[in-house]
Amino acid sequence: MPKTPKLAADAIIELIDHPDRPIVLIERKNPPHGWAIPGGFVDIGESVPDAAVREAREETSMEVSLQCLLGCYSDPSRDPRGHTVSMIYIAQAHGEPVAADDAVNVGIFDPGAVNVPLAFDHAKILQDYVRYRRTGSVPPITR
Amino acid sequence: MPKTPKLAADAIIELIDHPDRPIVLIERKNPPHGWAIPGGFVDIGESVPDAAVREAREETSMEVSLQCLLGCYSDPSRDPRGHTVSMIYIAQAHGEPVAADDAVNVGIFDPGAVNVPLAFDHAKILQDYVRYRRTGSVPPITR
Repeated sequence: MPKTPKLAADAIIELIDHPDRPIVLIERKNPPHGWAIPGGFVDIGESVPDAAVREAREETSMEVSLQCLLGCYSDPSRDPRGHTVSMIYIAQAHGEPVAADDAVNVGIFDPGAVNVPLAFDHAKILQDYVRYRRTGSVPPITR
Repeated sequence: MPKTPKLAADAIIELIDHPDRPIVLIERKNPPHGWAIPGGFVDIGESVPDAAVREAREETSMEVSLQCLLGCYSDPSRDPRGHTVSMIYIAQAHGEPVAADDAVNVGIFDPGAVNVPLAFDHAKILQDYVRYRRTGSVPPITR
């Protein structure tokens, strides 16, 4: 079997019982530091949606419901640790997040006004998400 | 870095200058045998869309244009060689496919009436694709 990029799954968690449906971001414990969409590596033997739900639970203590796929982010330079492809889901949850595991902090943000430094390509992903919320269109395929 | 599933990219190629926009399937040279959506493993350092276009070129001799993502297929049992996650794109091309590389044969099919045995979970993926053609909706997230 050939070597392929690492695979990750992330969930943009919408807090549906908060006004204006804000989202959850976590502050990373490990490098690269900064804030990020909750997520992490997919285990062998685990489906990608299952990984997104598990990572959301581990980092935010929330049970999320995946709504749809925003996109597949695969630029070889997007992760300084090595080529990692992330599947980004839009998810919903009730209640309040609590930081745990790889998250040292958790925050609730208006996705159009995030005022913390974001790791990886997560600023671009949130731009795509904000456009999706406004237009209903997922980002186009970019090579 | 943890071990994660292998990553593949496949393209459902619509022949847009043929009547009724049929699709291209290839007959596999290597196990698992049978027919399949053209595609293959993503290289480290290569984006997932680039891999889908490259594999389509290698197996069908066609230059394809990716239109959208149908979905991410990640059931751990979908590939008998080991856990492999496939990103499935819908693509378009002009002209006639010619089998090459890992394809011993190539065929042009009405996607709703495929009468050859399909490898992997490609029969289910084509069902999802036929539904997408009819309704415009991508398949829901299944865990």
